[in-house]
Amino acid sequence: MVVPGQNHRDPWFADFFKACLEDTKWLFQTEKGTPFLFPATGTAGWEASLCNTLSPGDKVVTFRYGQFSHLWVDMMQRLGLDVHVEEERWGDGADEAKLEAILRADVGKEIKAVCVVQNETTTGVTSDIAAVRRAMDAAGHPALLMVDGVSGIGALPFKFDDWGVDLAVTGSQKALSLPTGLACVAASPKALKAMESAKLNRVFLDFGDMIKTNASGSVPYTPALGLLHGFRESVRLLRSEGIENVWARHHRLGTGARLAVKAWGLKLLCENERWASDALTVIETPAGVDSGLVIKNAFAKYNLSLGLGLSQVQGKVFRIGHLGNMDEIMLLSALAGTEMALLDAGVKITPGSGVGAALAHFQKTKGIYPTREF
Amino acid sequence: MVVPGQNHRDPWFADFFKACLEDTKWLFQTEKGTPFLFPATGTAGWEASLCNTLSPGDKVVTFRYGQFSHLWVDMMQRLGLDVHVEEERWGDGADEAKLEAILRADVGKEIKAVCVVQNETTTGVTSDIAAVRRAMDAAGHPALLMVDGVSGIGALPFKFDDWGVDLAVTGSQKALSLPTGLACVAASPKALKAMESAKLNRVFLDFGDMIKTNASGSVPYTPALGLLHGFRESVRLLRSEGIENVWARHHRLGTGARLAVKAWGLKLLCENERWASDALTVIETPAGVDSGLVIKNAFAKYNLSLGLGLSQVQGKVFRIGHLGNMDEIMLLSALAGTEMALLDAGVKITPGSGVGAALAHFQKTKGIYPTREF
Amino acid sequence: MVVPGQNHRDPWFADFFKACLEDTKWLFQTEKGTPFLFPATGTAGWEASLCNTLSPGDKVVTFRYGQFSHLWVDMMQRLGLDVHVEEERWGDGADEAKLEAILRADVGKEIKAVCVVQNETTTGVTSDIAAVRRAMDAAGHPALLMVDGVSGIGALPFKFDDWGVDLAVTGSQKALSLPTGLACVAASPKALKAMESAKLNRVFLDFGDMIKTNASGSVPYTPALGLLHGFRESVRLLRSEGIENVWARHHRLGTGARLAVKAWGLKLLCENERWASDALTVIETPAGVDSGLVIKNAFAKYNLSLGLGLSQVQGKVFRIGHLGNMDEIMLLSALAGTEMALLDAGVKITPGSGVGAALAHFQKTKGIYPTREF
Amino acid sequence: MVVPGQNHRDPWFADFFKACLEDTKWLFQTEKGTPFLFPATGTAGWEASLCNTLSPGDKVVTFRYGQFSHLWVDMMQRLGLDVHVEEERWGDGADEAKLEAILRADVGKEIKAVCVVQNETTTGVTSDIAAVRRAMDAAGHPALLMVDGVSGIGALPFKFDDWGVDLAVTGSQKALSLPTGLACVAASPKALKAMESAKLNRVFLDFGDMIKTNASGSVPYTPALGLLHGFRESVRLLRSEGIENVWARHHRLGTGARLAVKAWGLKLLCENERWASDALTVIETPAGVDSGLVIKNAFAKYNLSLGLGLSQVQGKVFRIGHLGNMDEIMLLSALAGTEMALLDAGVKITPGSGVGAALAHFQKTKGIYPTREF
Repeated sequence: MVVPGQNHRDPWFADFFKACLEDTKWLFQTEKGTPFLFPATGTAGWEASLCNTLSPGDKVVTFRYGQFSHLWVDMMQRLGLDVHVEEERWGDGADEAKLEAILRADVGKEIKAVCVVQNETTTGVTSDIAAVRRAMDAAGHPALLMVDGVSGIGALPFKFDDWGVDLAVTGSQKALSLPTGLACVAASPKALKAMESAKLNRVFLDFGDMIKTNASGSVPYTPALGLLHGFRESVRLLRSEGIENVWARHHRLGTGARLAVKAWGLKLLCENERWASDALTVIETPAGVDSGLVIKNAFAKYNLSLGLGLSQVQGKVFRIGHLGNMDEIMLLSALAGTEMALLDAGVKITPGSGVGAALAHFQKTKGIYPTREF
Repeated sequence: MVVPGQNHRDPWFADFFKACLEDTKWLFQTEKGTPFLFPATGTAGWEASLCNTLSPGDKVVTFRYGQFSHLWVDMMQRLGLDVHVEEERWGDGADEAKLEAILRADVGKEIKAVCVVQNETTTGVTSDIAAVRRAMDAAGHPALLMVDGVSGIGALPFKFDDWGVDLAVTGSQKALSLPTGLACVAASPKALKAMESAKLNRVFLDFGDMIKTNASGSVPYTPALGLLHGFRESVRLLRSEGIENVWARHHRLGTGARLAVKAWGLKLLCENERWASDALTVIETPAGVDSGLVIKNAFAKYNLSLGLGLSQVQGKVFRIGHLGNMDEIMLLSALAGTEMALLDAGVKITPGSGVGAALAHFQKTKGIYPTREF
Repeated sequence: MVVPGQNHRDPWFADFFKACLEDTKWLFQTEKGTPFLFPATGTAGWEASLCNTLSPGDKVVTFRYGQFSHLWVDMMQRLGLDVHVEEERWGDGADEAKLEAILRADVGKEIKAVCVVQNETTTGVTSDIAAVRRAMDAAGHPALLMVDGVSGIGALPFKFDDWGVDLAVTGSQKALSLPTGLACVAASPKALKAMESAKLNRVFLDFGDMIKTNASGSVPYTPALGLLHGFRESVRLLRSEGIENVWARHHRLGTGARLAVKAWGLKLLCENERWASDALTVIETPAGVDSGLVIKNAFAKYNLSLGLGLSQVQGKVFRIGHLGNMDEIMLLSALAGTEMALLDAGVKITPGSGVGAALAHFQKTKGIYPTREF
Repeated sequence: MVVPGQNHRDPWFADFFKACLEDTKWLFQTEKGTPFLFPATGTAGWEASLCNTLSPGDKVVTFRYGQFSHLWVDMMQRLGLDVHVEEERWGDGADEAKLEAILRADVGKEIKAVCVVQNETTTGVTSDIAAVRRAMDAAGHPALLMVDGVSGIGALPFKFDDWGVDLAVTGSQKALSLPTGLACVAASPKALKAMESAKLNRVFLDFGDMIKTNASGSVPYTPALGLLHGFRESVRLLRSEGIENVWARHHRLGTGARLAVKAWGLKLLCENERWASDALTVIETPAGVDSGLVIKNAFAKYNLSLGLGLSQVQGKVFRIGHLGNMDEIMLLSALAGTEMALLDAGVKITPGSGVGAALAHFQKTKGIYPTREF
């Protein structure tokens, strides 16, 4: 990303930007979808998805099971949508059976969209988007399927075309390990059709302006060039690893983290294993132990940034992220730091137990890097 | 900006971000205004200004005299505002007398906002914002004054408080010489009051979320940390130079560029000298010479990026930017490259004439850098 | 270090370079010594020390207990010195009693220099320079004391003035965590006196040219500016931590590493604990296990670079470095990776045992970073 | 060059370093020569050339016509060589006729080496190495031909094999536009043969250690990895431009600079045009004008670093460098700055005259970058 200043109106830009859009399609695993790259954050990606396809008063169904799904609900409501919110325990994922029932009940097909956060960063829960799609199909419902994939896409399995997703969003600062500043969006043909009648106002986030200019490799306003260079490099790394290998790596890391938690005798906030996230692990501290103290010690003694418990789980949990440019010994480093911080906070664990459980798993399941065979 | 990954939820962030907001106030030269930093572009800054203070159907008055004022008009119309557009020749600025007449005619005070692009990058025209304010005051009109300062603030004189501006916008990629990705906005107390009744929808660009979180030094969504570090450093450089000196430097550069154009025997697109921009110079090629050819040669032979003529002045003009981290010999380099490209395109100029006129001016008016006195 | 090109003949350079020399004195903990910064490697620092103070045929005494002391011996011999080499087991340090006996026996005071490698990187052994000085004093011998501190100074205790060192050498690429390319040398007044009669040839490495030019803040040939910027920053970090704290940190890391080795049931190459290095740990693999296999797996499966066994301990040991910009969780990461690589190589260890032993030590002995108190 | 820390003992290094050596051969335009890369400066390259091939008391012939040739003479003398110095006017180059006469007179063939500085940076003079070789051949003399190419190779024509050079030296900080820290040396088979009997002491700079380790892609001591990465990239850029094009570019720049000097009515220090350097231009200020004042104003008013007059031409000349990563508008920028600084110092020149003369030449002779054709 450390490149000299460049002019996006010079001739090289068109081919470069078209390649960025192709990378975006690959990232979402889509051939049919239309990619968008906004110089903004994932929040803008949410808003772009809603504003370009819906009108004030439109009915949408969604789930709330953490701070990010909550913020998205809040956005929907403030945009004047008619939002049906299914409340789930923080620590659970999207309940497909409930969704199917709601959709079946909507005989007039008034629900315009189903909105699901794939990976809820607050709780360490990954909802099952393929199952959500199956529920929609079972109900025979034509609503759009919108997925917040900000903290998952590029790390966890995601198949835009295969799963029939209509709108998906991710950002540069998560699985791509880049600075904040790029919102990546993909829209299905059905979503683009919905755009024609969508009445929510938008200009900065308008798909139409993007489609018109992107066709010739240009953009409606100044692009974030450095980030786009970083984006190309980041996708290049993921492509060279292979998307299936990327997903497998995150699953190995997630499994290791969960084995460590078990070895410590602690509990995951996510109780149902099928929803356990491979992108981060959210751990409950024992009753009486403020999780904030673990986080403070990790940062102040060991220069380790653990994630805070947000909103209703504040003080009760802490979070270990393990997505993006992350390998086994980096996670082991974080687990070792966590062990020290737990001990500092008075949690009785056996030093080395979690790290040992994780590394035993890694040692058995990890292969040699292809370029380093001997 | 090349900093290792950092966590914006760690304790250091609050003080750091508050300092960024103070820098923003300094940049706009305001004590009374409220600063905002959006992780987006200047286009988003425009939209934030409009959406946070206006409602669909609101009357606004604005001028169109170039591509950027045109795009802002387009945004206003698409947001459903009732836009009165004064069309000016591309090459002129905002006509204060016309504005005063319009405002005086609005006896019912139905006009909610006057929107002016300070520095029109398409034409090299800087409108006189202080005079716009005087016209509004003379008409005794209470409309909000919104200024697009994207390509001017931090280079050209701008006085938010003194000039009674209500909303001003700039971006990181112009006078601050940073990558694209930060939209800086300031809002007057009157603008914040208007926010209460504004009905245009916005969430990503909502002032209210920013105000609530910024108070404690936090942000409503992930910030662009690297850019914020760059922003602090860029403002530090401007502060250490002194804002009056920054403005004087740009005036010296602009004067030099105009002397070069005169020495070449060419014409500025901006005919009225009071509007001549010190941030860039837009030059007409003689009849029969496609300005695109000058630009192509500059890029292809000399690795010099001149600006294209956009929209209705395409093929007729080219642009030389001279704002931001720019000193005299950098501009002379661009002028020398322009001379070669003009010769390549068949324009008859005396080699060295423009450079010589500019450097003679610089040599007489430039002082020694304070840290380098001998 | 990422700075634009600069001209070392511009006026700012003199003050900057004088500050670099002051930093060098601080690094060696000397007030009386004269500092030198050569744009070269530690090997050049060795040669500068010898060539500037000795003549062909001069008698020197030194110890060989690893590859680096061996290479220094080889240099002395090739420079035509008359070298008395005390051979020690690889894994032991400089035997002060033997040295004292040799010096006492030299009634004619023909020995001109005693040369000792402080931290032998091949074996993980730190010789006791203060004790070496005491042995020289006890023998009443006037020989110069030369110390190779390349892999120790800035990490391990080193006191040029207090210990009566005459020549000391370090390099940018070890405790300073910089790229290779700066050889830092300090010379006592006695060493400078010896310079007057030294007949070994040198020009690039001549102290005299340096002294003459450095006096006014200039240099005899082009300096490595980027590295000097890095040097200043690196020393600034060490100074702000406090040299005693830096030494304590390395002792904590070294102790942790040794506790891990013990928990694994493995042996250090350094048998005598008083010589155990806090800069790196050199570990023997069990009989029948090629240490190269541990290293290969560490690199190929876990992207972890362990140090090879060099020369006569090849295949028998591997090395874990823990000096420079290194904290507890970085070392724990390396220890965890080592555990996996040991398991891969068939060494029976309990997963997590070494990491657990080390982290338990760190958790008890590590304090909060001063800037992060809560 | 901004790469994470790497271990030069990891397996990738051997191929990488062998490629660096191939690049070095290309840089010197040699197939037969042996390349060396020392982590040091050009001064060390000089010393390596002398020490590896000569013995104390050996006769050498050389020319002194500037500060750098003077310093090399000084080195030869301090190394105990028997140096025949031909003194030339500062501003002239190596006089081949004199050399031929000296060599013819040496009937006993006692002269072991002829040492010539190709591009004398003090005076802007490029000696004619091909002609020097012809003189040696005409005299039928077997002495080694050693060339200091530090400020020329990679910018000015240099043909190691074709010209029968035996030892050539360059550094990273000149034509390669890298930081200081790599000394590149090439040695002919004849030079390597001379190595066998050379008695000057050297270890750090020993060719033998390099040859032994380089054969397998390793090095005798820690390499400067970052610089080597920069070296590869720098040579890659030169290779992609084409060495003949690189030389032509420098000739175009040099011609432009000389046309500017002529237009100013000033004089080159180099009076004989056949020796005029295309790497830098050294200009005399008119009688009564201290060239230091031009340099001070250039730096203090325009942030332009001109070269000082060194030693006997101090106060009389100033230098403009134009080698390495330099194109036409960069040089025009420097020429424009020089015009201003000349005016500041009271030199009567016509503003724009020099820049105009140079740019008229560039406009006529410069082609389009191959990748930018339209």
